Amino acid sequence: MSWPNRQIKLVSYAEGLPGEEHFALAKATTPDPREGEVVVRVGYLSMDPFPRLQMSGSADGVPQLPLDTVMIGRGVGRVVASRHPDFNEGDYAAGDLGWQDYALVSGDGLRPVDPTLGPVSTCLGVLGPSGLAAYFSTTKLGQPQPGDTFLIDAAAGSVASIAGQIAKLRGARVVGIAGGDVQLDYITGELGFDAAVDYKAPGDITEAIGAACPEGVDVFQDLVGGAIHDAVMDHINPHATIVLIGTIASYNLGPDEVDMGPRHLLTWITKRVTIRGFLVGDFSDEYGDGLRELAGWIREGKIAYRETVFSGLEACPQAFAGLFGSEHVGKMLVEVADV
Amino acid sequence: MSWPNRQIKLVSYAEGLPGEEHFALAKATTPDPREGEVVVRVGYLSMDPFPRLQMSGSADGVPQLPLDTVMIGRGVGRVVASRHPDFNEGDYAAGDLGWQDYALVSGDGLRPVDPTLGPVSTCLGVLGPSGLAAYFSTTKLGQPQPGDTFLIDAAAGSVASIAGQIAKLRGARVVGIAGGDVQLDYITGELGFDAAVDYKAPGDITEAIGAACPEGVDVFQDLVGGAIHDAVMDHINPHATIVLIGTIASYNLGPDEVDMGPRHLLTWITKRVTIRGFLVGDFSDEYGDGLRELAGWIREGKIAYRETVFSGLEACPQAFAGLFGSEHVGKMLVEVADV
Repeated sequence: MSWPNRQIKLVSYAEGLPGEEHFALAKATTPDPREGEVVVRVGYLSMDPFPRLQMSGSADGVPQLPLDTVMIGRGVGRVVASRHPDFNEGDYAAGDLGWQDYALVSGDGLRPVDPTLGPVSTCLGVLGPSGLAAYFSTTKLGQPQPGDTFLIDAAAGSVASIAGQIAKLRGARVVGIAGGDVQLDYITGELGFDAAVDYKAPGDITEAIGAACPEGVDVFQDLVGGAIHDAVMDHINPHATIVLIGTIASYNLGPDEVDMGPRHLLTWITKRVTIRGFLVGDFSDEYGDGLRELAGWIREGKIAYRETVFSGLEACPQAFAGLFGSEHVGKMLVEVADV
Repeated sequence: MSWPNRQIKLVSYAEGLPGEEHFALAKATTPDPREGEVVVRVGYLSMDPFPRLQMSGSADGVPQLPLDTVMIGRGVGRVVASRHPDFNEGDYAAGDLGWQDYALVSGDGLRPVDPTLGPVSTCLGVLGPSGLAAYFSTTKLGQPQPGDTFLIDAAAGSVASIAGQIAKLRGARVVGIAGGDVQLDYITGELGFDAAVDYKAPGDITEAIGAACPEGVDVFQDLVGGAIHDAVMDHINPHATIVLIGTIASYNLGPDEVDMGPRHLLTWITKRVTIRGFLVGDFSDEYGDGLRELAGWIREGKIAYRETVFSGLEACPQAFAGLFGSEHVGKMLVEVADV
């Protein structure tokens, strides 16, 4: 048996914001799995900023994606054929499926998904990598204490929107940096953040952060880097903790552009700041505990989440570009098929 | 009673390297102490980089020194008059004495010095702030483990020369970055560092660091910042620790110059690096323990130190400028009087 497949391939490297011109739709046929392999009908694809780095012509330590290959992306779907002992036809499974209708992958790289825990799409977001990144970055590294001012950027996004709510549960005063009214209303309204800073508003971002954080910043979880990172440094408190989660501001630099900025070394000394780089994979042994606690908070109504869902495989390039804008809130997904 | 005093005053702010033109010798008379005050005959003055920051026209968070005041500087000397209960005539005392023959200071700001522990000059160096900074930055923050590659810059200076030896005692492989043959011979010969990098040598500093650290860098204690900091980042290992102690490379910037460089945020994320700013004052409750351990190591011959001593108060500007060069090793002092 085989499956008629559509695939979206990367056809040129990007400088600046990624757009539809870097991708092309191709037709293919997905063959039967060989020993150890599984064919998954893709249901949802997760749109994440990190793959943007792999779309650059220069790699800078991040593995570069070859041209004319299927664009990478995590997804969840349903097994339609399996020659792997852990998966049977009809099972839900998540992993690196890529932008396509059918993914032929090694079963060892898939994880099973329990559809009774919630909508299967959540295994890509709040009950998946985004929620886990929020959970471990906040509870293991940032560790906000009651009364602390906790500041986070990309605050309406899938990771920070959860991290801010976890910081609230720990008793911190939570301030988010986001762009535009849609995102600001979301974090201060639905999510209950104590204050918000609009990085797109006219005026000085440094002053705006100071106004939103009158007692300075005790914990800063940074997904953006760049000019926002710099502006926060003017308000960092003695003995503050800075958790580095992403540098979205730099992901769209060209291959010859260096991400330059003021050095903050002297500030970090005089304030005795601790800075820690975070990758969620370091906590893989504890994913089960994290998912259980996140699922509990969601059931109890303590943590809210949203998904922004684009429809159809062909919407992937547009959804991906939208990640770097300020129109969406929560987890950005593409629904490829109703599985 | 009163004392004829000579004082060296700051008469202009500096841009770039500090020189003799920023200072002027003035004559004054030191009066009798009032209640709580002490007059100290200055013996040795300590030359330290940090006051350079207070000689700049723009402050950037560091308190600026007013013009026409006595240049600040730590020192040790002998009490010639006291109206403070903790100090009697003839006692040795250390504190912020300034560049002058006689210092009229509050006794509360002085600490007594026991001259039987060693030459009194060591209370300004290896058995004083420099040694304590080396001790606590290495044992509390850097914490090199056996087999780690421990890298330190300004390696022939008063802090790093001791820190590197402490890292050796803990079983690390110790590499120092310094400038010129005098400094390199000192750290690899007398101090027993395993390798050295000459930042003044022709060729690429990044490659030189890589050659000296073939297994990468596990602990980097940084007193310099700037281009040396950047070069080390290309060799930093996963889960490395970076301790920020000073940014000597930036101390001579002009008031309108911003210390710019490449951002290392993405490297720090992908390598999950921990960076911590260090000020020795955070460990003041444990100074006694630190001094006892340092003194023990010196007695046992496990830690060597050197002093570079200029003679006479009028040599202060020259000695201070020399801090930013590469001709001296160990603690830079000026002997003002034989006390």
